[in-house]
Amino acid sequence: MKPQLLVAAVQQPCNADRKTNLDYSIAKIHEAAAGKADLVVLPELHLGPYFCQNEDFQHFALSQPIPGPSTELLSAAAKQAGVVVVATIFERRAPGLYHNTAVVFDKDGGIAGKYRKMHIPDDPGFYEKYYFTPGDLGFKPVNTSIGKLGVLICWDQWFPEAARLMALSGADMLIYPTAIGWDPQDGEDEQQRQLEAWVTCQRAHAVANGIPVIACNRVGFEQAPDSDKGIQFWGNSFIAGPQGEIICRANAVDDTWLSAPLDLARSERVRQIWPFLRDRRIDEYGGLCRRFIDAD
Amino acid sequence: MKPQLLVAAVQQPCNADRKTNLDYSIAKIHEAAAGKADLVVLPELHLGPYFCQNEDFQHFALSQPIPGPSTELLSAAAKQAGVVVVATIFERRAPGLYHNTAVVFDKDGGIAGKYRKMHIPDDPGFYEKYYFTPGDLGFKPVNTSIGKLGVLICWDQWFPEAARLMALSGADMLIYPTAIGWDPQDGEDEQQRQLEAWVTCQRAHAVANGIPVIACNRVGFEQAPDSDKGIQFWGNSFIAGPQGEIICRANAVDDTWLSAPLDLARSERVRQIWPFLRDRRIDEYGGLCRRFIDAD
Repeated sequence: MKPQLLVAAVQQPCNADRKTNLDYSIAKIHEAAAGKADLVVLPELHLGPYFCQNEDFQHFALSQPIPGPSTELLSAAAKQAGVVVVATIFERRAPGLYHNTAVVFDKDGGIAGKYRKMHIPDDPGFYEKYYFTPGDLGFKPVNTSIGKLGVLICWDQWFPEAARLMALSGADMLIYPTAIGWDPQDGEDEQQRQLEAWVTCQRAHAVANGIPVIACNRVGFEQAPDSDKGIQFWGNSFIAGPQGEIICRANAVDDTWLSAPLDLARSERVRQIWPFLRDRRIDEYGGLCRRFIDAD
Repeated sequence: MKPQLLVAAVQQPCNADRKTNLDYSIAKIHEAAAGKADLVVLPELHLGPYFCQNEDFQHFALSQPIPGPSTELLSAAAKQAGVVVVATIFERRAPGLYHNTAVVFDKDGGIAGKYRKMHIPDDPGFYEKYYFTPGDLGFKPVNTSIGKLGVLICWDQWFPEAARLMALSGADMLIYPTAIGWDPQDGEDEQQRQLEAWVTCQRAHAVANGIPVIACNRVGFEQAPDSDKGIQFWGNSFIAGPQGEIICRANAVDDTWLSAPLDLARSERVRQIWPFLRDRRIDEYGGLCRRFIDAD
C-alpha cells in the first residue's frame, strides 16, 4: 500500500444518452490517470439520468448484471489507465431482484469487490425503494492494491453507523458516490441548510473515524419524467482529510474532476491524537441495534 | 412540553476561587431567566479550573456527593429563577469512586436526573481516566418539564453512538457541557482544524438525529500546575437546529451567554423530510458492539 495516494472524484452531468455518459466517465478516468491519480471515483448511477424520480417498471430495463456490458468497459478503462475505479451500476442480480451497487476495479482491471447500497431512501423524487433491494453484503471495505476502500452510496452518508462499521472493518478511507440535489421549489435558505448538512455529516464521518472521505456527486438539472418537478443536482463533490478538513471542493455547477493527495500514515497519527476507537463503550451500545428504545 | 423553548448556554471562565465560579454561574442563570430562558446550560466542571491537566490525588478533595453543597445552591437558583439548569459536578459516589456527572435541575429546583460521563478521555493535559470511573447510567435522556434532555459531556461529543442512543431513547435535544481547548504549542492550522472538527462533529449529531444541539464550553487560559503547559479553552459555544444549522455561536474569548429559540415541533418535520430513523439497518449493526472487526 502506497502511503501517499492521489485520489480523484469526477463530478459529471448525466444525460439521456447513456453512451455519452459512459464515454465521459472513461475520458475522465484517463485524464485523472494522466494526472497521476491512483483512484478515480465516479458519481452514483453515472450511466444515465437519475431514473428514480418516478416509479416506472420500464426503468428495470436499464439494469445490468455484474459483470456485464458496462463493467466490462469500465474494467478495460481501469486496466488501460492503471487506476483503481469506483463506479455504480443498477445491478440486475436475478430476474426481479435489483440493487444499487458500487463496483471497485483494481488497477489490473479486475473487479476487486462490490458494495450493495444498504440504506435505501424513498422520498418524493427519490423513489429508490421501488427499484433497489437493500444490500446484503454488509459494511465491508473492498481490498485493493491501494488500500481498503470503505465504499458506501449516497443515502448511506447520513448514517454514522455505516461509516463506523467500515472503519471498524479496517477501511482506509470512506467513499460516497452520490446523486443528491435540490428541489428547485425549496427556498434558498432551505437549500443551503441541506447542502451544509450534507457536507457536515460526511466531514464528521472523517472526524469520528480518523480517515479521509471522498464525496462524489453529479451536477445538472434533471426534469422528472411525469411532472413539472425535477432535481437540481448540487455537485459540491469534495475530498476531506482525517480531521474532516476540506482539501478540495467543487462548486454546484461545474462538470469537473478534482483530486487531492492523501497521506494514509497521517490517519493513524490523527487517531493517536484523538483516540476515539480506544474509548468506544461497546458494553453500552446494544441499543444501536434497536429501532427505538421506548421508556417503558 | 412547550413547543417553543428559549435555551441558553453560559460560556464562562473558571478561576481558582471556586466560590466566584459558582456565583458567576448562578448570576448567569438569573440573567438568562430574566431574558425568558427555559433552559440554562453551564460548561463542564464549571466550579473550578480544569483539574485534570495533571494526576494529583489531592484533587479528589474537590469531589462532592450528589445531592451535596453545590447542587443545593444550584437547585435553589433553578427554583428561584424558574428555569431548568444543567450543571456538571465532580461526583463523589463512594469513597474511592468518582464520576464526571451532569445534574439536571427542573424549574422547581428538584433534581430531574443525572448523567455520568460515559466516554472518558486520557491524553496529555486531559488525564480524566485517573479521576473518573466511566458512567454506568447508560445513554438515557433526563425527563424534565420542558422535554427530554439528551445530556452528554465533552468527550462524548466525538461519538455518534452516544448521540444516536440518546435520540433513540427519545431525546428532544442534545446538550454537551464541555471543557475543550487548544494546546498553545500547536500551530494555527492545527488549532483551526481541531475547532472546526469539534463544531462539525456536533452539528452532524443534530443532522443525523434531527434534533437541536447545545454545546457549552468554557473560555480562558489555564496553566498546568506542574509544567509549562496549559490549555487555551476555545469557547465557541453554539446552538444548532435539527438540520445542523448554527443558530448562534460565541467567539473563542468572551465570557458571555447566548440563547436561541427552539421549535421542537420542527424536529419532527425535519425527520419527515430526512427519515433516517426509518431506514436504519438494525439487522446489520451488530458490529457496532465490537472493538474491531478483523478480516479473518
